[in-house]
Amino acid sequence: MSTIKEVAKRAGVSVGTVSKVINNIAVKPKTKQAVELAIKELNYEPNIYARGLKVNRTHTVALIIPTVWNPFYGELAFHIERYLREKQYKMILCNSEGDYVTELAYFTMAKQNQVDGIITVTYSDIESYISNSIPLISIDRFFNDNIPYVSSDNFSGGALAAKHLDDVGCQSVCFIGHGSKKDNATRNRRKGFVDYCERHQKSYLIFDDQGHHETFQRNLELFLKKEVIETSTIDGIFAVTDDYAFQVIDYVTKNGKRIPEDVQIIGFDGIKSSATDEIKITTICQPIEEIAKMSVNGVIALINKREVSHEVLLPVQLFQGKTTKG
Amino acid sequence: MSTIKEVAKRAGVSVGTVSKVINNIAVKPKTKQAVELAIKELNYEPNIYARGLKVNRTHTVALIIPTVWNPFYGELAFHIERYLREKQYKMILCNSEGDYVTELAYFTMAKQNQVDGIITVTYSDIESYISNSIPLISIDRFFNDNIPYVSSDNFSGGALAAKHLDDVGCQSVCFIGHGSKKDNATRNRRKGFVDYCERHQKSYLIFDDQGHHETFQRNLELFLKKEVIETSTIDGIFAVTDDYAFQVIDYVTKNGKRIPEDVQIIGFDGIKSSATDEIKITTICQPIEEIAKMSVNGVIALINKREVSHEVLLPVQLFQGKTTKG
Repeated sequence: MSTIKEVAKRAGVSVGTVSKVINNIAVKPKTKQAVELAIKELNYEPNIYARGLKVNRTHTVALIIPTVWNPFYGELAFHIERYLREKQYKMILCNSEGDYVTELAYFTMAKQNQVDGIITVTYSDIESYISNSIPLISIDRFFNDNIPYVSSDNFSGGALAAKHLDDVGCQSVCFIGHGSKKDNATRNRRKGFVDYCERHQKSYLIFDDQGHHETFQRNLELFLKKEVIETSTIDGIFAVTDDYAFQVIDYVTKNGKRIPEDVQIIGFDGIKSSATDEIKITTICQPIEEIAKMSVNGVIALINKREVSHEVLLPVQLFQGKTTKG
Repeated sequence: MSTIKEVAKRAGVSVGTVSKVINNIAVKPKTKQAVELAIKELNYEPNIYARGLKVNRTHTVALIIPTVWNPFYGELAFHIERYLREKQYKMILCNSEGDYVTELAYFTMAKQNQVDGIITVTYSDIESYISNSIPLISIDRFFNDNIPYVSSDNFSGGALAAKHLDDVGCQSVCFIGHGSKKDNATRNRRKGFVDYCERHQKSYLIFDDQGHHETFQRNLELFLKKEVIETSTIDGIFAVTDDYAFQVIDYVTKNGKRIPEDVQIIGFDGIKSSATDEIKITTICQPIEEIAKMSVNGVIALINKREVSHEVLLPVQLFQGKTTKG
């Protein structure tokens, strides 16, 4: 079997350059072509275990998310896998579907050294299963001071949403959320929203129903019927996620209200269904790629027994779409 | 550490039932609660290696797709991971981003027994790297008679799209595709469409530009301007994927055409951005969950040295949306 040196020689580049191409680090297109051609001609098989792999390491990290079939988690999983791959880690994907027994199996794998670390978005009560020996990064959810977490600055995001509705002339605003005791992200968006309204004497309403899907749906529509359709009490809505914003938009437009003329709506997340898609509404954008990058850096630091900061809060920003008056 | 027997005893169920819960196989909600409570109280850690794992097996399968940040691949990856998990396999996700060197690294892993098998959606020239020793299932792409593949019946789907446009009264139809020499799926959709038109003496046009993103975009708009906006030559469009259908819808509506009154449009895929999302257009639906299931069954059969059928073609079906006259 041919060696990386032979590939470098044939391609007329350095071994380092070949390594870059193999590890998808950017080089000149021409150089990449030459290296890929040499790899093909020599039928060279890069041995990923020759890339600085340590003993007793699998060089795999498990990503546990509720489901990858979702624009937000899809984008997150895409970036996390890409950053892990850049560092020669493989990513095992687990769609927990919110089932903590499924998540538990992966924590067990980590304890048994079948994966080196875990990045997780979970709302289950898994604290009792987590030992400090597991390199683990939590996204969006604060567990305890022993578990580092990476999150958007949800409080500032909620305040920014309230400020924007204020700036575009809304008189009476409301927060719409699907209440969860465990979801720090949701709670902090609500807190930031309320904080802004309180400090600026804006009148506001809170709809934060904790019911299951159908119940929530029904209660939300009753709320919108009363406050938006029949009485026009509310002229500005902050939905805690883009998904809920789409539900609100769907219901109020079907019931004869114009957006943004009659009611202005802002979401949270900035989801795009693919890299080439566009953001469809006014929303608070999470820095999803940055969240991925910081989570990967964090888990690899933990795997290598390095210190990581307990909390990483990343800045959000407003995206002005057509659902508010720009 | 407690055993599965102790969990079963405490929960008042059989060991088999506990195993079902651990492996996410459906049991009565009450039973599941009891078992999960017992697992928690006894702090039981299921050892996945106690689940019939064979020697020299990693019980991991690599899924190689262009990108998981896409509704179609997101849904596919979700179902594949779920079916693999049901069979106690872990899924390593690789976003190849169309780069064959990235894909190559995973074939090498398979040869080095770091993964047991591979499921791949690729359009790269990887045949030279594939040895028959690798348990590999190809989705959508035919390589050679040694590599089993699973695909929707794209030919019938293309014919079904043409028939639907015919049924809803279109006089002159066209196929819109982003030509690829390597993409069997695309080619067969076009072939099926043309076959129907030929057999039924329907006049049709073909736009199958092979240019890169910007070039394709520009040529597509020139084509639509000439044939749909200015001359109304075409009153029925079959776009080779839902994504292209959305592009067409966006362009023609911005240019004053009404859908479906002036021009009727049908896509292909039946994409939904999440499990709770709805299909937005008239389209030919791929049985994505079935493709996932057959791919998982196929790769596990190959891993266990069992025979698998070389070609699995799965039936598609029409979804009637608002972009054609139902």
